[in-house]
Amino acid sequence: MRATVMHAAGDVRIETVADATISKPTDALIRITRACICGSDLWPYNGGPNTAGQQMGHEAIGVVEAVGRDVQRIKPGQVVIMPFAFSDGSCIFCEEGLHTACLHGGFFGVGGEAGGAQSEALRIPNADGTLYPLPVGKDDALMPSLLTLSDVMGTGHHAAVTARVAAGHSVAVVGDGAVGLCGVIAAKRLGAEQIILLGRHQPRIDLAKAFGATDVVSERGEEAIERVRALTGGVGVRSVLECVGTPQSMETSMGIVRAGGAVGRVGVPHYGAIPGAQPMFYRNVIVAGGPAPVRAYVDELLPEIMEGRIEPGRVFDRTVDLDSVPDGYRAMNDRTALKVLVRP
Amino acid sequence: MRATVMHAAGDVRIETVADATISKPTDALIRITRACICGSDLWPYNGGPNTAGQQMGHEAIGVVEAVGRDVQRIKPGQVVIMPFAFSDGSCIFCEEGLHTACLHGGFFGVGGEAGGAQSEALRIPNADGTLYPLPVGKDDALMPSLLTLSDVMGTGHHAAVTARVAAGHSVAVVGDGAVGLCGVIAAKRLGAEQIILLGRHQPRIDLAKAFGATDVVSERGEEAIERVRALTGGVGVRSVLECVGTPQSMETSMGIVRAGGAVGRVGVPHYGAIPGAQPMFYRNVIVAGGPAPVRAYVDELLPEIMEGRIEPGRVFDRTVDLDSVPDGYRAMNDRTALKVLVRP
Repeated sequence: MRATVMHAAGDVRIETVADATISKPTDALIRITRACICGSDLWPYNGGPNTAGQQMGHEAIGVVEAVGRDVQRIKPGQVVIMPFAFSDGSCIFCEEGLHTACLHGGFFGVGGEAGGAQSEALRIPNADGTLYPLPVGKDDALMPSLLTLSDVMGTGHHAAVTARVAAGHSVAVVGDGAVGLCGVIAAKRLGAEQIILLGRHQPRIDLAKAFGATDVVSERGEEAIERVRALTGGVGVRSVLECVGTPQSMETSMGIVRAGGAVGRVGVPHYGAIPGAQPMFYRNVIVAGGPAPVRAYVDELLPEIMEGRIEPGRVFDRTVDLDSVPDGYRAMNDRTALKVLVRP
Repeated sequence: MRATVMHAAGDVRIETVADATISKPTDALIRITRACICGSDLWPYNGGPNTAGQQMGHEAIGVVEAVGRDVQRIKPGQVVIMPFAFSDGSCIFCEEGLHTACLHGGFFGVGGEAGGAQSEALRIPNADGTLYPLPVGKDDALMPSLLTLSDVMGTGHHAAVTARVAAGHSVAVVGDGAVGLCGVIAAKRLGAEQIILLGRHQPRIDLAKAFGATDVVSERGEEAIERVRALTGGVGVRSVLECVGTPQSMETSMGIVRAGGAVGRVGVPHYGAIPGAQPMFYRNVIVAGGPAPVRAYVDELLPEIMEGRIEPGRVFDRTVDLDSVPDGYRAMNDRTALKVLVRP
């Protein structure tokens, strides 16, 4: 079958690899109908750590083609969301809704046991605990929004939840990528009164405003911190959704959060320590977040999409076929595309 | 009047200083009837930063002697708890219960505007928002326990609250000082099922067990982490009460918290950054805490003491008069005393 393989910085290729098959009784095999390219895929594309020959992609919707003999809930023919992490659905962490800490789980598209979703097909470990059957056909018009439940919408929601967004609160979203924009949607639906987007790209700013952002700060560093403080009566925001993961974005986040507020991190951290442990302490600031248990959030977010209350699929501004996935990487890396949908 | 003054490392003296007086219309003047020495007082005593000539002490109960003309709620003759921070009781932060972030607040015993409580008398800024009148006489038998509401019991409670202790949870308390022991009390009353004390001093361990600790780990570093994991099915505890503040204690805390768990920091941090930002992220660990809004917690904790359900006053194992305060510092620094009560 054909799949996306990362070889080195800037060198991502579509290649023929071994067919995905069922190798364990708890596996399912899905035919990928929609996938996408993630901001985090750009880290290895830009020379970050990756396994040579790593199959890429961790967000998908597919049709179940076959299931192992121990799979009970998932059936061939179902249209399913594939969350970016697989999980058994029954360990102590899954039972608490933290599927990304599953004792028998792992991640797609990062090398290792599981393959990547930017491909024709994929083996799904722990299919019963991982896949979420959808009540729609494989070409439903809502597909772009439903696809975001595999990662970016659930991740934006996790940023908002861990940053403790609540009704009437002031919120800042650091980063205007797809996750940040979904964070705006999440903050809005959780009742935030003021939503400040920190971003610099006009089309993304426009989309953020359509999603509910009330203010935009395009400055950086100390100037951004001053602007957010000026917008919040001098004290900063209660909730910061950190959707970037660089040392600079984390420093900005710590600078704009008010005393007693929370920073919800969902940008994969490219820093080794949280800066400012002392001011963070004296101001009772909370730092939380991590890989979103998107599987747990589908129950809450799916009806929102089905009933048209949120449209996270608007983050996709380009669609490619499998052969053009390398073009999609280039476009996202050049910021000529916000988020690229893949139709294998 | 006589007061405790820090001059340099190891050099704390009882001296005659200018009498405390009312200088603002919102001030009260209290006669100190009980004070104590805090673990955090040992930082300047051991050469940490302090203002030369700094008046020491931030925990007290006293009798109101006079009030400024704008003080409405507090009356002369009342026996009052003096929380370690003063606060106006009406700003946005006080209204949320975060009095230690008060827009018009500050701290006692750290130099600056307010004096120290290890003295005969003290000026209390923002008396109405700061002081908490007690329903008992100044020599009530419950005084030692009531005195802990000015800091260590409220601080242990804050550690438990910010570490999200809840019914049935596993908890670790890092540190066997007075705050850690009060953290054990707090974790117990919030319903923790397993309470692991990390400490090494037998009298304190005995007291922790009396307060509700179920397990004791006296190892340090990696060995302590392994022991806690072994006690918790290999996963670590849901809540860590970090009651020390050294880089080592923070590293241990991050090593023993389970995925999705929280570290509540109340030990004043002697480190500049939170270590392990990446494993913390991948494990969705929360770091919270800071100076406890003890003023906010009195409503909840006072009835517990009045009705005999908790006895935090048992942390005091030595009582001195004002002249003997320097002996008290020495005893706490040598660990021959756990916590020293001062009767001026």
